Amino acid sequence: MKKNYRTGRRFTGYLLLVLLSFPLLARSILTGEDGYRLWLKYDPISSPVLSDKYRHQFSHWQVLGESQTLQVVRQELDYAFRGLLGKSLPVARSSEASLIIGRLANLPAPLRIEVEQSVPASKEGYLIKTIRYRGKTVNVITAKTDIGALYGTFRLLRQLQTLQSVDTMHIASEPKLKIRVLDHWDNLNRHVERGYAGQSIWDWHKLPEYIYQRYYDYARANASVGINGTVLNNVNADPLILTPRYLDKVTALADVFRPYGIRVYLSVKFSAPQLTGGLKTSDPLDPAVRQWWKNKARDIYQKIPDFGGFLVKANSEGQPGPGDFGRTHAEGANMLADALAPYGGIVMWRAFVYANEKHEERSKQAYSEFKPLDGQFRDNVLLQVKNGPVDFQPREPVSPLFGATPNTSLMMEFQITMEYLGFSTHAVYLGPLYKEVLETDTYAKGQGSTVAKVIDGSLFGHRLSGIAGVSDIGSDRNWTGHILLQANWYVFGRLAWDHTQSAAGIAGDWIKMTLTHDEQAVAAIEKMMMASREVTVNYMTPLGLHHIMGTGHHYGPGPWVDSLPRDDWNPVYYHKADQAGIGFDRSPRGVNAVEQYFSPLREQLSDPQTTPEKFLLWFHHLPWDYKIPSSGRTLWNELVHRYYQGAADVKAMAAQWDHLQDKLDPLQFEQVRMAFVIQQQEAEWWRDACVLYFQQFSGQPLPDGLEKPHHTLAYYEQLSFPYAPGQGGK
Amino acid sequence: MKKNYRTGRRFTGYLLLVLLSFPLLARSILTGEDGYRLWLKYDPISSPVLSDKYRHQFSHWQVLGESQTLQVVRQELDYAFRGLLGKSLPVARSSEASLIIGRLANLPAPLRIEVEQSVPASKEGYLIKTIRYRGKTVNVITAKTDIGALYGTFRLLRQLQTLQSVDTMHIASEPKLKIRVLDHWDNLNRHVERGYAGQSIWDWHKLPEYIYQRYYDYARANASVGINGTVLNNVNADPLILTPRYLDKVTALADVFRPYGIRVYLSVKFSAPQLTGGLKTSDPLDPAVRQWWKNKARDIYQKIPDFGGFLVKANSEGQPGPGDFGRTHAEGANMLADALAPYGGIVMWRAFVYANEKHEERSKQAYSEFKPLDGQFRDNVLLQVKNGPVDFQPREPVSPLFGATPNTSLMMEFQITMEYLGFSTHAVYLGPLYKEVLETDTYAKGQGSTVAKVIDGSLFGHRLSGIAGVSDIGSDRNWTGHILLQANWYVFGRLAWDHTQSAAGIAGDWIKMTLTHDEQAVAAIEKMMMASREVTVNYMTPLGLHHIMGTGHHYGPGPWVDSLPRDDWNPVYYHKADQAGIGFDRSPRGVNAVEQYFSPLREQLSDPQTTPEKFLLWFHHLPWDYKIPSSGRTLWNELVHRYYQGAADVKAMAAQWDHLQDKLDPLQFEQVRMAFVIQQQEAEWWRDACVLYFQQFSGQPLPDGLEKPHHTLAYYEQLSFPYAPGQGGK
Repeated sequence: MKKNYRTGRRFTGYLLLVLLSFPLLARSILTGEDGYRLWLKYDPISSPVLSDKYRHQFSHWQVLGESQTLQVVRQELDYAFRGLLGKSLPVARSSEASLIIGRLANLPAPLRIEVEQSVPASKEGYLIKTIRYRGKTVNVITAKTDIGALYGTFRLLRQLQTLQSVDTMHIASEPKLKIRVLDHWDNLNRHVERGYAGQSIWDWHKLPEYIYQRYYDYARANASVGINGTVLNNVNADPLILTPRYLDKVTALADVFRPYGIRVYLSVKFSAPQLTGGLKTSDPLDPAVRQWWKNKARDIYQKIPDFGGFLVKANSEGQPGPGDFGRTHAEGANMLADALAPYGGIVMWRAFVYANEKHEERSKQAYSEFKPLDGQFRDNVLLQVKNGPVDFQPREPVSPLFGATPNTSLMMEFQITMEYLGFSTHAVYLGPLYKEVLETDTYAKGQGSTVAKVIDGSLFGHRLSGIAGVSDIGSDRNWTGHILLQANWYVFGRLAWDHTQSAAGIAGDWIKMTLTHDEQAVAAIEKMMMASREVTVNYMTPLGLHHIMGTGHHYGPGPWVDSLPRDDWNPVYYHKADQAGIGFDRSPRGVNAVEQYFSPLREQLSDPQTTPEKFLLWFHHLPWDYKIPSSGRTLWNELVHRYYQGAADVKAMAAQWDHLQDKLDPLQFEQVRMAFVIQQQEAEWWRDACVLYFQQFSGQPLPDGLEKPHHTLAYYEQLSFPYAPGQGGK
Repeated sequence: MKKNYRTGRRFTGYLLLVLLSFPLLARSILTGEDGYRLWLKYDPISSPVLSDKYRHQFSHWQVLGESQTLQVVRQELDYAFRGLLGKSLPVARSSEASLIIGRLANLPAPLRIEVEQSVPASKEGYLIKTIRYRGKTVNVITAKTDIGALYGTFRLLRQLQTLQSVDTMHIASEPKLKIRVLDHWDNLNRHVERGYAGQSIWDWHKLPEYIYQRYYDYARANASVGINGTVLNNVNADPLILTPRYLDKVTALADVFRPYGIRVYLSVKFSAPQLTGGLKTSDPLDPAVRQWWKNKARDIYQKIPDFGGFLVKANSEGQPGPGDFGRTHAEGANMLADALAPYGGIVMWRAFVYANEKHEERSKQAYSEFKPLDGQFRDNVLLQVKNGPVDFQPREPVSPLFGATPNTSLMMEFQITMEYLGFSTHAVYLGPLYKEVLETDTYAKGQGSTVAKVIDGSLFGHRLSGIAGVSDIGSDRNWTGHILLQANWYVFGRLAWDHTQSAAGIAGDWIKMTLTHDEQAVAAIEKMMMASREVTVNYMTPLGLHHIMGTGHHYGPGPWVDSLPRDDWNPVYYHKADQAGIGFDRSPRGVNAVEQYFSPLREQLSDPQTTPEKFLLWFHHLPWDYKIPSSGRTLWNELVHRYYQGAADVKAMAAQWDHLQDKLDPLQFEQVRMAFVIQQQEAEWWRDACVLYFQQFSGQPLPDGLEKPHHTLAYYEQLSFPYAPGQGGK
């Protein structure tokens, strides 16, 4: 049998060292924060001054109206104030309230007149304003809709949770993107594809009758950051989801989520008419097929009047699609769009498509497939594009599709779950990744044509806009398997609402709401989080390397893998290391993937000297002694340096965390501490395996002074992980 | 596609009725008891009088000694007293203590002399005694070992949790069975075979570094009822569990459990020497094979000095075994026993064996296989026998093996998980089932030879004794998927410690510790629990019917199934309904399974007139108009009556529960309420499907006045549940 790197003999001494350097071994912690409450802990505010001030300002509050959403507002405020301001607080509901919450239309006329100019136009926007009313100071949260009022309520609570001033508030906010959804790659058997936090939180067997409190808390957490949709099931969709039995289960969830402003969407299998409908074809131009989908949409909307729509993975990785019937993606998407349009539903059609038969380089295929279809999609179709042209790597350049389809609404697909980033034991804050992508200039309409402007519709004037995050949520008590990874759910939601916010600022809010208010600790953790993604890129895939992880499960390094049936599934296809050098020549001298970008980006990426170092080996195959401009090191030495630096940085992060012990809840501290033990080991595993593997080609020694790899390359190559979590096809 | 019974059209009206009859619909409950704390809630004692008394008596306490187990005692006492007696209680640790806990050897001499005569002889026994010492009243908890002191501590806490008097305590207790284990049918991919409460609580991927608090709480709960062992993995064992990588993970769990007196055991695959050891055979008489197991045992004990031993499913349902090499079960078991003996380990060898090739009736096979081997097993082997001769049915007669092997130690295998009893949505308290089995007289050595005396070793004078419960624990927040099913884990442990206790008394304790102290509510819930198993037998398999559930997943009724490759996998094999009648003739006129029982049980079961009605159709095929002595009804009418009575009783239980709403925590109440909605529907599903199916053969009408079945038989027959939880082979 293959052995595990973690328990090899040579590691024993090292492990002992690691253990000795941690004073705390695992122990029972009976009273601690297990992480379930996320960023909605509402623990008592420790500053008596602030607490008094908040209590004075909010102890009399009134919610105007009786909708389910406003009942949620009441419940949340009651719960939050009791927590934040002390259980003894008398929560009064009086017309003499100093905090008034309600839809604009429900406000008393004088109050309405006072604020209506400041209320954002969008349905979901809100206004929080401190005004003088009837001779006293009153705080008003209002909006065009009840959902807006709920968003405003969570916004006010954040002010308190982060200990902000509430003296003269004037906060007006509305979302820059209309569709802000989590994609759950959850199977009906509760296996989560690429899930690393237990199983699916949807207990399909017990639905529709049995409703977990967790379903409500999921909705609360999403609403608190402005997420307004959820795709319940895997894009590798099971056709059973559209059968009446499962639609009743979906309906039960939709009923739970509705008051929180969250619409339910479903992933559908394109061949459902054949698989569950008894039809002989699923051809999108066949009238019976079109009618089947129309009937299906009608049935769904009878149960779920605010159903969001469909997400489709078609003609990709073995999934059926319109191509099976000689039709285009547009013809397939439009058929579904036509079925949903009468009810206001939308289609999110994935652009993650690559077909072997074309023999085109994989990173180029989505663009080649969809660019020619621009303008052919119905206006309730969103083309859902992954941020990079390959697949959620630790770092990729942006997909060339962004900006390339002026007549088609594109939405972003980010991954929140850690498929390629260490599962749920590596602390990687994704805020910087998201921001790097969103702020990338595509030059589609000249300078300033950022990806953010493409997807928010402003660049080409689209009505529909959206963003999806592939969820990192599972049944683990702390939701995401790692406390710090809760921040990725949080930052996704916050950026989905407003992509101009800073990743650091959002991290700071999250830390204060989740971990600690100690200023030094907040600063230290924020710094650690902001650096964490670059650290991981360094020990996994520095300098533009990509897709060199273990096969199938994507756990750990596997740059040697060369035996998969498709060439573009093999890591060797992506790094192309040989004695001459390393990297994928996607320049005009190679596969010319750069041609899909706009000028001047195209030209910049065509030349190694003008290509950002972070993308160097993505676009160029370079000799081992190529000089890296920023450091003056040879490529080989720079590569080695980055791997070692990444691993060393993890060690430093772990040590930093240990120093914060006194500032943190013991159970939160301990959970993260244990994960850091694993991350340290795995960072060195990545470093050693990759350096040894590439050394075969460079033929050069390790620079002086570096710790020797813990094992031989042969050792790393024979490791096997048949039960690594999150695998596909289960 | 097949439809679901729950959502069929005709059910709509019915469902509406059900919903209207429940004032509460599901709603968010932000502050409630989610069930995680089990019976160790330690909420403040509401009676000020009692609380004062306890506080007075226990506020100064001292634990003598520094072992890990005694640290656990300290932590538990501190946590429990703070909870039960109020957070403001000053928990002093002083030599002036009025509560002293420690091993006998650690007590001050005068104290030791005072109590040592009363301390039970067994290592795990304990004494709780109130004495006069140094002129004041002192409560002593002592034992031969630290583990005994821990058990005594939990026993004292139970006194407080159930509001008992602590004025003059003299409680001496020791376990009647030595091995008291939970069997986890948990796969390494976290799927739990026959698990209905989420996935496995063992996160193998994150072990050994990442230790969930849940592991500790699992150990606490087990220790609190005296469970002293855990078999971590499925009896359908994966050979990887014995590889170094997984043994390191097992070691981490063993380290967690050790202070709580819980030993770790593993299920092993008999062909492991071939599958992971590189040998060409697994023949138990082959020297290389024997050496391989010896080396494996040595390796395990190096890591886990108190490792418990192996559990083996061999030559059963496709598992490999000694029979593959022409060897007997004894030869197979003894090889493993010899490998473990030097370290004090044991082998639990399952008697759940049935082989098609023999063409003997399935209920007879285990006896036929093992009876001839009596006397051939090493004395560190326990033969693990399921309570009934078929497979954990809602009701079975006891296995004829009990009492049949005077020279072999038998241990009991009970099922705690609800494979055949409605998964985790039917409220079935198993105390009465366990007691019915344990108190059954086998007549092996004349009257009074109960099953309990067989397994506790007293009947035949065996040193080793044991009991195993197939766990109902999973990752669900409330552990067992249904609050009331926590009681089955609890009652299993309590009866494993002392099988003479009453099921009702244990239920009462559990209710007080878990749900409420309201006397009326306790009485009502206890009554409901005590009746619940009989209710379920009635709506599933009345009068001795068995194994008529859906195929594979065992969800819902499937008496019509006749297409499985083995005849004895088909429900029709077991009920044998035809126009002449129904039931399995296992009398001497039939397959003569009764011959395996001792006289006079054998004769009693041979005659329908003397066979208890509860086993009637287990042993006899009887005509539809056979007169049931107790009721005077015909067999057909009695069968129908029982099905309808069972379903009606569930409705009554659910209504009863609703009446208790004010006495219960809102979240606990709501969880059980929702499960009752499902149980009511499923009880009627069972009733309708079975009555309609058997009616085909009886040709008789339903008695007057009974509600018509909700659907046709054809409807029930086409229902399909591909994702029913807990299926094997996943």
